[in-house]
Amino acid sequence: MFRSHNCGELTAANINTEVTLSGWVQKSRDKGFIVWVDLRDRYGLTQLVFDEERTSKKLIEQAQNLGREFVIQVTGMVIERASKNPNMPTGDIEILVSKLTILNESMLPPFTIEDKTDGGEDIRMKYRYLDIRRNPVKNSLIFRSKVSQEVRNYLSNEGFIEVETPYLIKSTPEGARDFVVPSRMNQGEFYALPQSPQTFKQLLMVGGMDKYFQIVKCFRDEDLRADRQPEFTQIDCEMAFVEQEDILNVFEGLTRHLLKEVNGVEVEKFPRMLYDDAMRLYGNDKPDIRFGMEFGELNDVAQHKDFGVFNTAELVVGIAVPGGNSYTRKDIDKLINWLKRPQVGALGMVYSRCNDDGSYKSSVDKFYDQDDLAKWAEVTGAKPGDLVCVLSGETNKVRAQLSALRMELAERLGLRDPKVFAPLWVIDFPLLELDEETGHYHAMHHPFTSPKPGQLELLDSNPGDVKANAYDLVLNGNEIGGGSIRIHDKETQAIMFKHLGFTEEEAKAQFGFLMDAFQYGAPPHGGLAFGLDRLVAILGGQETIRDFIAFPKNNSGRDVMIDAPAPIDEQQLTELSLKLNLKS
Amino acid sequence: MFRSHNCGELTAANINTEVTLSGWVQKSRDKGFIVWVDLRDRYGLTQLVFDEERTSKKLIEQAQNLGREFVIQVTGMVIERASKNPNMPTGDIEILVSKLTILNESMLPPFTIEDKTDGGEDIRMKYRYLDIRRNPVKNSLIFRSKVSQEVRNYLSNEGFIEVETPYLIKSTPEGARDFVVPSRMNQGEFYALPQSPQTFKQLLMVGGMDKYFQIVKCFRDEDLRADRQPEFTQIDCEMAFVEQEDILNVFEGLTRHLLKEVNGVEVEKFPRMLYDDAMRLYGNDKPDIRFGMEFGELNDVAQHKDFGVFNTAELVVGIAVPGGNSYTRKDIDKLINWLKRPQVGALGMVYSRCNDDGSYKSSVDKFYDQDDLAKWAEVTGAKPGDLVCVLSGETNKVRAQLSALRMELAERLGLRDPKVFAPLWVIDFPLLELDEETGHYHAMHHPFTSPKPGQLELLDSNPGDVKANAYDLVLNGNEIGGGSIRIHDKETQAIMFKHLGFTEEEAKAQFGFLMDAFQYGAPPHGGLAFGLDRLVAILGGQETIRDFIAFPKNNSGRDVMIDAPAPIDEQQLTELSLKLNLKS
Repeated sequence: MFRSHNCGELTAANINTEVTLSGWVQKSRDKGFIVWVDLRDRYGLTQLVFDEERTSKKLIEQAQNLGREFVIQVTGMVIERASKNPNMPTGDIEILVSKLTILNESMLPPFTIEDKTDGGEDIRMKYRYLDIRRNPVKNSLIFRSKVSQEVRNYLSNEGFIEVETPYLIKSTPEGARDFVVPSRMNQGEFYALPQSPQTFKQLLMVGGMDKYFQIVKCFRDEDLRADRQPEFTQIDCEMAFVEQEDILNVFEGLTRHLLKEVNGVEVEKFPRMLYDDAMRLYGNDKPDIRFGMEFGELNDVAQHKDFGVFNTAELVVGIAVPGGNSYTRKDIDKLINWLKRPQVGALGMVYSRCNDDGSYKSSVDKFYDQDDLAKWAEVTGAKPGDLVCVLSGETNKVRAQLSALRMELAERLGLRDPKVFAPLWVIDFPLLELDEETGHYHAMHHPFTSPKPGQLELLDSNPGDVKANAYDLVLNGNEIGGGSIRIHDKETQAIMFKHLGFTEEEAKAQFGFLMDAFQYGAPPHGGLAFGLDRLVAILGGQETIRDFIAFPKNNSGRDVMIDAPAPIDEQQLTELSLKLNLKS
Repeated sequence: MFRSHNCGELTAANINTEVTLSGWVQKSRDKGFIVWVDLRDRYGLTQLVFDEERTSKKLIEQAQNLGREFVIQVTGMVIERASKNPNMPTGDIEILVSKLTILNESMLPPFTIEDKTDGGEDIRMKYRYLDIRRNPVKNSLIFRSKVSQEVRNYLSNEGFIEVETPYLIKSTPEGARDFVVPSRMNQGEFYALPQSPQTFKQLLMVGGMDKYFQIVKCFRDEDLRADRQPEFTQIDCEMAFVEQEDILNVFEGLTRHLLKEVNGVEVEKFPRMLYDDAMRLYGNDKPDIRFGMEFGELNDVAQHKDFGVFNTAELVVGIAVPGGNSYTRKDIDKLINWLKRPQVGALGMVYSRCNDDGSYKSSVDKFYDQDDLAKWAEVTGAKPGDLVCVLSGETNKVRAQLSALRMELAERLGLRDPKVFAPLWVIDFPLLELDEETGHYHAMHHPFTSPKPGQLELLDSNPGDVKANAYDLVLNGNEIGGGSIRIHDKETQAIMFKHLGFTEEEAKAQFGFLMDAFQYGAPPHGGLAFGLDRLVAILGGQETIRDFIAFPKNNSGRDVMIDAPAPIDEQQLTELSLKLNLKS
């Protein structure tokens, strides 16, 4: 037996008990005649004490020679501490050690195993097993496990069945790039790793499994942006014999359950917002509604004067920055420079100060009078002391720019409190999205999403106007889940494939099995998938997902700890009927 | 709203309620003036009724035109059935339909959606989504989900943390063949899919995560034997600061929990058997102990006469077949032919009939007298009325042959009752196994398994004799789990790699990260993995795993439903820096 207790559980109630503990040496303090050692395990820290009066000389020497991160086992008596530490659960006691065994020595770790470590990102990733010993990472992984278990508890109680779908499936050129897996037994052929279990969960609905879920790894071979991983985890769900309303209710229930069980937060019924309204009011399909700063569209009150910049713009739109009139001219210039960076790409910004006396002072006083500016304040909801920031240009671009500005200012103003949770359903997404480069439409959600009833006809005349039975769950400005009611008949699915530019042959080759399945009594169905990595990070009050993943990859898709990917043997390649074809 | 109730829940208590149901037409009976339709969903069957007296002519006609597997929605009144069916939960009631909507039509399915279907294996796999509508498959998937959830409940309650380990890892030539995944971003390099998360779970132990589990897909690119899948699911577990005893207790607890929660069976403390004893008594490291028929080694009582076949054999060994004296000469000849098939490979069989009067009649009466045969009966535990079957030859071969005979006879004698559960720990496995083809030793469990204390020295002199801290959990003659106490220091691991034929460079290239990790305070640790597919099948009373997997692959590793694997685009290959290298 390596331990009778763990390092986080002993209190005054255990005084005068003999215990055995095992763990890592967090640190030691050596006063010569007395040595204290903090022993750490997953559960906490316990102070060990060795002193001249009560400990043998040999044992003290042993203790003096312990290095950081040595693995030791000790037996001793729980005694009351002379100077208690009310900040730690075991702070009332210490262990007077009578026996010490070194289970394993340790070299000096390459960074400190502390909440605030001296290790940079790269070294921490290379020695991730040491990084996991640190509370912030360890607790994030434990938190993730708890969230997953609560997801399963909730959905199981609701009658959902967790079904494992295959990982070795078929590549479909549509959508993001697949990771592929050469088949040795089927020469020249490849499996693909799933980007999601989408078609399989739909087939489970055809199979009558009416409430399905799975917490499942998905794979996308994309050029990695910051905070994206080539493999990521989804809570994947699907239901049959349901309408959108049923799905929103079930997964609102799940999200509320999680907020309550893992965050102790009770949330009211989630508000719902049309996609068009989200774009109009926040310039964004995943608005952070923890704070206001809604967009005010100013075309009507800004395009009647001689200011050409506005008059030629598709959209003139502004926000009121609370207390922003206190910004100096220099502050504002910095803000404009921030907006002009290529990541945002604005050409400039017009502003209007709302003075406490009710007057206005704008950067375009040449063109607009006090009455005009008063209207801008009214439309953006600005109060005396605020600053109205106005951008103009092509609608989509200017909305994205103003949305970026809104989020940046909210961050600076401390309006994005990670302890506040503001969930939101965004509904009625467009069915199709125009790819501006190619001029083709592609599916905004995926090709299996059903259009709103009666809108199928619009596909020919105004494809961009067709709305879908598609919805996203947004939490604190992040899309944490999204889904749709699916097409469940072969004819509609064929029309969709046609509009997405598939020939009949292509559709059949790639999705023939699904089209076939639709001919054998497919029920109405729909579903949703949550991104678990992000959901867990947000519930954990963080915006980056990396510490919630045990062994993440870096931005080149590499695992720097195990050094993967790596070359493979020539023989392996030959068995797979492959040759390298390197670009020189 | 598609339904107010499901098709499995309405009883006499609901009579006179108006309900809405949705589901599939299981079958209909049309008497002209009255039509009954059985409506099916995941939860059961409900009888719908349409009759001249109470139903409109139009509605009856609609009902008459329903085909099998049409998806319909009906609204109607729950009424008492004239002739009740006590064999179904909803057998007391039927629905007098007032409204019928066809949600989707269906072509005639290629096989009947019945518990006993007319569809063969191949067609059922091609239309797996229809197969899943059948109770035996549907219930197996639901059963699997329940087992998984109970595993998670038990382990979470025991303080285990579920940690997701990566799927895109690094290929290691040792062991079975890896599936590999070409990396587009790292030209000429490959990820591998994990054969198990072995090294990651050990790194989690180094990281202090002391109780880890994961239900996780694993991958092996092996030539498929019957009932093997290229992707399979493990319940993967690891613990730190534990000895073998701790691990056996925790996972015996898990198994007992599953037997109780999913099978309603209470099992005593699991017996433990040394590997050497299992081989000696059952000729097998995963003995089925639901029945006796233990081996009796007969060298001492069969090698003292002039029978050269026995005298030159390394091992002479027999079993007593209960009631086997009733076999005719023809029965026994058939048995001998069964033994001689190449799958078993015995050269012949000697037998001795144990007559009811206490006398014996053997096939080798020329050589052995009644006293000799009495000893054979004693050693094999044969009683009057039994048949002693004796094989001889090289120890390993003859044990395997007699084990096959024992299982076959037990099957025929009905001794392998799937409702009886006989778990067993087999412990003290050998550390190394001789590969008879190459003459090299390889790790019997895996290269990270620790030898028994004090046996490291034996590695040089008698490597085959070294026992490991390794154990298997056996249930009804199937290995359902296995594990070991791991090596946790760099020196021992280096010795192991050396004995397994790794050069220092190879060990470093493949497992350098693990050797590094062992230098930074690795705790003593060990673990175990269950094969979920098989565990679920056995708990479900089946011996084949396929119906417990939603979308299994066939013996060529193909998914015949989606037709994977498949060729990929030339462009995809080029992006991956690959060219096909087909054997003509």
